[in-house]
Amino acid sequence: MGSIFGQVFRIATWGESHGGGVGVVIEGCPPRLPLTEADIQPALDRRRPGQSDIVTPRKESDTCRILSGVTNGLTTGTPISILVPNEDQRSEAYSEMETMYRPSHADYTYEAKYGIRAVAGGGRASARETIGRVAAGAVAAKILAALYPSLEIVAFVSAIQDLEAEVDPLTVTAAEVEASPTRCPVPAVAEAMIARIKAVRSEGDSIGGVIGCVVRGGPAGLGDPVFDKLDADLAKAMLSLPATKGFEIGSGFAGTRLRGSEHNDAFEMRDGRVATATNRSGGVQGGISNGEPIVFRVAFKPTATIARAQQTVTSGGEAAELKARGRHDACVLPRAVPMVEAMTALVLCDHALRQRAQGAVGQ
Amino acid sequence: MGSIFGQVFRIATWGESHGGGVGVVIEGCPPRLPLTEADIQPALDRRRPGQSDIVTPRKESDTCRILSGVTNGLTTGTPISILVPNEDQRSEAYSEMETMYRPSHADYTYEAKYGIRAVAGGGRASARETIGRVAAGAVAAKILAALYPSLEIVAFVSAIQDLEAEVDPLTVTAAEVEASPTRCPVPAVAEAMIARIKAVRSEGDSIGGVIGCVVRGGPAGLGDPVFDKLDADLAKAMLSLPATKGFEIGSGFAGTRLRGSEHNDAFEMRDGRVATATNRSGGVQGGISNGEPIVFRVAFKPTATIARAQQTVTSGGEAAELKARGRHDACVLPRAVPMVEAMTALVLCDHALRQRAQGAVGQ
Amino acid sequence: MGSIFGQVFRIATWGESHGGGVGVVIEGCPPRLPLTEADIQPALDRRRPGQSDIVTPRKESDTCRILSGVTNGLTTGTPISILVPNEDQRSEAYSEMETMYRPSHADYTYEAKYGIRAVAGGGRASARETIGRVAAGAVAAKILAALYPSLEIVAFVSAIQDLEAEVDPLTVTAAEVEASPTRCPVPAVAEAMIARIKAVRSEGDSIGGVIGCVVRGGPAGLGDPVFDKLDADLAKAMLSLPATKGFEIGSGFAGTRLRGSEHNDAFEMRDGRVATATNRSGGVQGGISNGEPIVFRVAFKPTATIARAQQTVTSGGEAAELKARGRHDACVLPRAVPMVEAMTALVLCDHALRQRAQGAVGQ
Amino acid sequence: MGSIFGQVFRIATWGESHGGGVGVVIEGCPPRLPLTEADIQPALDRRRPGQSDIVTPRKESDTCRILSGVTNGLTTGTPISILVPNEDQRSEAYSEMETMYRPSHADYTYEAKYGIRAVAGGGRASARETIGRVAAGAVAAKILAALYPSLEIVAFVSAIQDLEAEVDPLTVTAAEVEASPTRCPVPAVAEAMIARIKAVRSEGDSIGGVIGCVVRGGPAGLGDPVFDKLDADLAKAMLSLPATKGFEIGSGFAGTRLRGSEHNDAFEMRDGRVATATNRSGGVQGGISNGEPIVFRVAFKPTATIARAQQTVTSGGEAAELKARGRHDACVLPRAVPMVEAMTALVLCDHALRQRAQGAVGQ
Repeated sequence: MGSIFGQVFRIATWGESHGGGVGVVIEGCPPRLPLTEADIQPALDRRRPGQSDIVTPRKESDTCRILSGVTNGLTTGTPISILVPNEDQRSEAYSEMETMYRPSHADYTYEAKYGIRAVAGGGRASARETIGRVAAGAVAAKILAALYPSLEIVAFVSAIQDLEAEVDPLTVTAAEVEASPTRCPVPAVAEAMIARIKAVRSEGDSIGGVIGCVVRGGPAGLGDPVFDKLDADLAKAMLSLPATKGFEIGSGFAGTRLRGSEHNDAFEMRDGRVATATNRSGGVQGGISNGEPIVFRVAFKPTATIARAQQTVTSGGEAAELKARGRHDACVLPRAVPMVEAMTALVLCDHALRQRAQGAVGQ
Repeated sequence: MGSIFGQVFRIATWGESHGGGVGVVIEGCPPRLPLTEADIQPALDRRRPGQSDIVTPRKESDTCRILSGVTNGLTTGTPISILVPNEDQRSEAYSEMETMYRPSHADYTYEAKYGIRAVAGGGRASARETIGRVAAGAVAAKILAALYPSLEIVAFVSAIQDLEAEVDPLTVTAAEVEASPTRCPVPAVAEAMIARIKAVRSEGDSIGGVIGCVVRGGPAGLGDPVFDKLDADLAKAMLSLPATKGFEIGSGFAGTRLRGSEHNDAFEMRDGRVATATNRSGGVQGGISNGEPIVFRVAFKPTATIARAQQTVTSGGEAAELKARGRHDACVLPRAVPMVEAMTALVLCDHALRQRAQGAVGQ
Repeated sequence: MGSIFGQVFRIATWGESHGGGVGVVIEGCPPRLPLTEADIQPALDRRRPGQSDIVTPRKESDTCRILSGVTNGLTTGTPISILVPNEDQRSEAYSEMETMYRPSHADYTYEAKYGIRAVAGGGRASARETIGRVAAGAVAAKILAALYPSLEIVAFVSAIQDLEAEVDPLTVTAAEVEASPTRCPVPAVAEAMIARIKAVRSEGDSIGGVIGCVVRGGPAGLGDPVFDKLDADLAKAMLSLPATKGFEIGSGFAGTRLRGSEHNDAFEMRDGRVATATNRSGGVQGGISNGEPIVFRVAFKPTATIARAQQTVTSGGEAAELKARGRHDACVLPRAVPMVEAMTALVLCDHALRQRAQGAVGQ
Repeated sequence: MGSIFGQVFRIATWGESHGGGVGVVIEGCPPRLPLTEADIQPALDRRRPGQSDIVTPRKESDTCRILSGVTNGLTTGTPISILVPNEDQRSEAYSEMETMYRPSHADYTYEAKYGIRAVAGGGRASARETIGRVAAGAVAAKILAALYPSLEIVAFVSAIQDLEAEVDPLTVTAAEVEASPTRCPVPAVAEAMIARIKAVRSEGDSIGGVIGCVVRGGPAGLGDPVFDKLDADLAKAMLSLPATKGFEIGSGFAGTRLRGSEHNDAFEMRDGRVATATNRSGGVQGGISNGEPIVFRVAFKPTATIARAQQTVTSGGEAAELKARGRHDACVLPRAVPMVEAMTALVLCDHALRQRAQGAVGQ
């Protein structure tokens, strides 16, 4: 269980880093949406290995193929199956992992749960699993664009370790983000991040950071009361990404220091609509979007796989020392930006279609 | 939509602060579990208004009644319906809210979504809605106790504004938490918190803080890969609680500053089982519990309802000044502790039953 | 599990014949729908015991109360909780059933499944459980009326044992159905049915029959391909009713005798829309409604509870003779007509809202 | 929506007759189950075209490939993706269907629903869609075999038009069924069926019939009360198959003629367990299996596609005459037998895993 996401716009992802490939089945896509592989590939290219000299040099083109659900370039309303075959599999790099649990990886927990694990490449816990999400996110983004032409989702690297970029969520653009291989939109900080990543990598170590994300131009009214609050679903979506350890929206943890009189967002009329003077709510109130920018942050821990020697145990319960081989990211954040955007699009698209389902009748 | 939670152990909550009551229907409860109202009422009593002089003085006994699913004191396996009638409703206190949107409340967003809202008491966005969760959480806790006798869930107030308590998640006890009406287990800090809450209340203002939670003695293997990771489901559960703005597990946001070599939890053998020397993972790796304590923190913003004058607009789009009447919490955290525990129990129970469903066959 | 029905318009029913009552929580109801108990009670009155001299004489008013989800007579979009308290419970009538399994009842299977059962009144297997469905069905019917003003659902008793009524699904009216306590719209056959029911009852025996149902004036396009076909969901809905043993749509089992050239429904234009010259499809093609009347039939077995002595075994495995006491229907069909209509409305309403969710975007 | 089936053991099917292929993603499969393509291919071979001279001569090998979820021949507990590429696509055969609606096919309803349809091969309404079900059903059957070694599912053709075979569900074997290309286990009737199919085909016509199915050796206790009754889920599963028009279990429609005293299944002890002297219940009481053979029948209409000229209309609303080309089955029943078995296995497997989830705790 656990590989299906969404209630009305639903996706089922499958696949491991080693095997026939990875992919996704998308259910509930509206019909007559123009869709080809060219709508999906750019998002996959932003996620794939080898895209720059600060990410893993693995050679995978991650070329997607739509197998169903589209006729003559238009969606038919039936399930869209997208496949990305696996390439460049080097199982031998994983031989010692067969018996040792890599620290802070999912090796031990998968075995505790299932009594078995796909050793090569980390199986389903591989970051390669996110290909299906990113592909489906691209479809969700197309639906959102059709529903809300002014809506835009921009994620960006806002910190790597202590290197923090001051980013204004009201103005940051995708072009600024894509200007650096770090996907940090502040050039000076981005430069420092590149240097840091390279230095840490040369030491066989890894680092983490924070990704910020903003949704601008979206409607008020998305999100459902109680359990399926928009921020609750975003929190789940983000914490479902590999290596994430935290989520905060609007004022987040820092807001816990303020008083209500300092924290509340006063309502005002702006451009003829109800708006808020400040946005400590982060665009969501009572779990429902209020039309202000949705602003949240996601914490990513340092990559678990490092080249340094680490203490661990074998599946037989013997102490052991592990030194990972293989080609890994010293910092996953640049490649995680499109993942954050994809999960955001999936949550918004599901709630947008749910909102249409439950709209008032007969009026 | 949005009022059903869980996949196998599922609950449906209903009810507003004004109306016939609030309640929950619990689906998927195993049969033959001893269950009476006495198993549920203590959790509700820890949640209810009027329990101490630092929470809202509203008089509500929140007495629960089991309407179905139990025969001769044992669950039958069929839906358990629990009802808590409403008392002490003062609709008149809400008259001016009929036309004004309370800042940082859900008034505007509910209206944007539904074109209507239950004005009195905030409708479904009222904290009263959490009664159903807390009642269901008590049932979930009983199931967990039967499955894992050593499992315990302890939540506690770890900070109110800048007043931070150093709490050791390995040792903190429920008795320490309940020793203070603040539910902060460090007496000196708890005293300061009481003073702060009273001072802020006297100024017609409100404050927020952080609740910590630990699950000790639980099994390895709970949580599903990819979307329904245990930490993802906990994040959703916590962000679905009123007034929450953030969630972090293990090292959380602070962990983004560390290097992999500093952050990774080395495996070791302890008491004959695989354990970790440190616990920056917070008890979850790859979305699945590893048997170490599950440790997470939840950010609560200051209560939105304050007695001070605030700028807002009316539903007609006119600027207005609002000064809330009614009896509200200046700080929700003491009453939110049982809510955090309840949501934790619900997530763990659902995953525990799911794990039984998908266990290996024929071996 | 098993007490939640629907995907977008979802209901959760609860309650046994003995206990605090029975009820339903309705999720996903569109907002601003006028709704009071008066919209629901008539359907419950058509279902309740004691409504005529051919049904069980138990005295239950089955008075419903809306506990949540409605403000000032309008739905708010949040869960609607409906409660019907239990009355007239005579547990003593069930004393001997405590140890004996009633033949063709659910006594043994509940115990095989759960290791426990609510003896009094049959617990969750009691026909009283259907109150929640009928109440929710009345809400679904209101939504359908708002969406499709010309849509009407008419169910009717078409046969009791060999007493068959020739009913034209194109013209049969609710008034004709309600004209007889049998709910058979053909007066002469209805008279014979009354005599048969009374005769069988006086012999301590029971009888079954067939209920027909037609949906006229509905739209084309409801139902989803593959698993959630409209006829598949109707089949499930009907077979989920107590005492049902079969379902057929359109030509049904009789149609298996025809050739394709005899069976196919030729398309033609009628009143400016695509129509079919015949309707052997029963209004559904490829699992999706085609705008023609949806016509189906449901088989009900004779009531399991009879006053005659029957061979059975005790829970201890001893042979025993059981002679039921209590006040039971000799024929459930008159009271099952509103149940069939309710389940039909629930299926159609769910699919209608789903269809809105997945409608084309940006066009 | 509509392409996901099951609650705990869940499958998502995708694919059309024309395009990259068809397939299925299986979620919730227990780990460590031996599984290779050789476990799946035999079921697909029983379903595929060209298997005998009484089915469509289309040449499709329907060779499956497991893309994920299996390592070293064992399932890992993560999603199993199975792909069957499409071959032998002749789109030209469908050119005139581009504008004409084939009578009693899904052409018009898909267009009414989605405003678009995949013309070639009938898109998602093609019988080719069932490949994913049959593949998943083979996996479900393996799980059932591990859980209940004595369980067996046997479906068979019991009637084609008026040619009815008397089949004893207590004794019929898979070998008897497979002995004839008709999958009718009574040789004399099977011979007559072959002659009938060939005669009808030569006349450019088609025929339907009835498939019976029995589940022997299964446990008591499967199925959930109220909505997810075992027979309700079987009814939905069967009505979701192409060309089905009816479902009946146990005594079915014929049972509506009996009295309760004739219809009830007396309990008795047999081989030390609770059994029934007769089986008019068809193995299910109150929606839960009672351990007796589960016996049901499914009505299949005659194939809609016939070579004879038929009246229809074009998408432009013009009257037209259609004469289908292409290579179609004159009678789908022989190929539908493995589909019925697959859907039965999927329902039973889901309920078996659900039952494990909700089993009693702490005892």
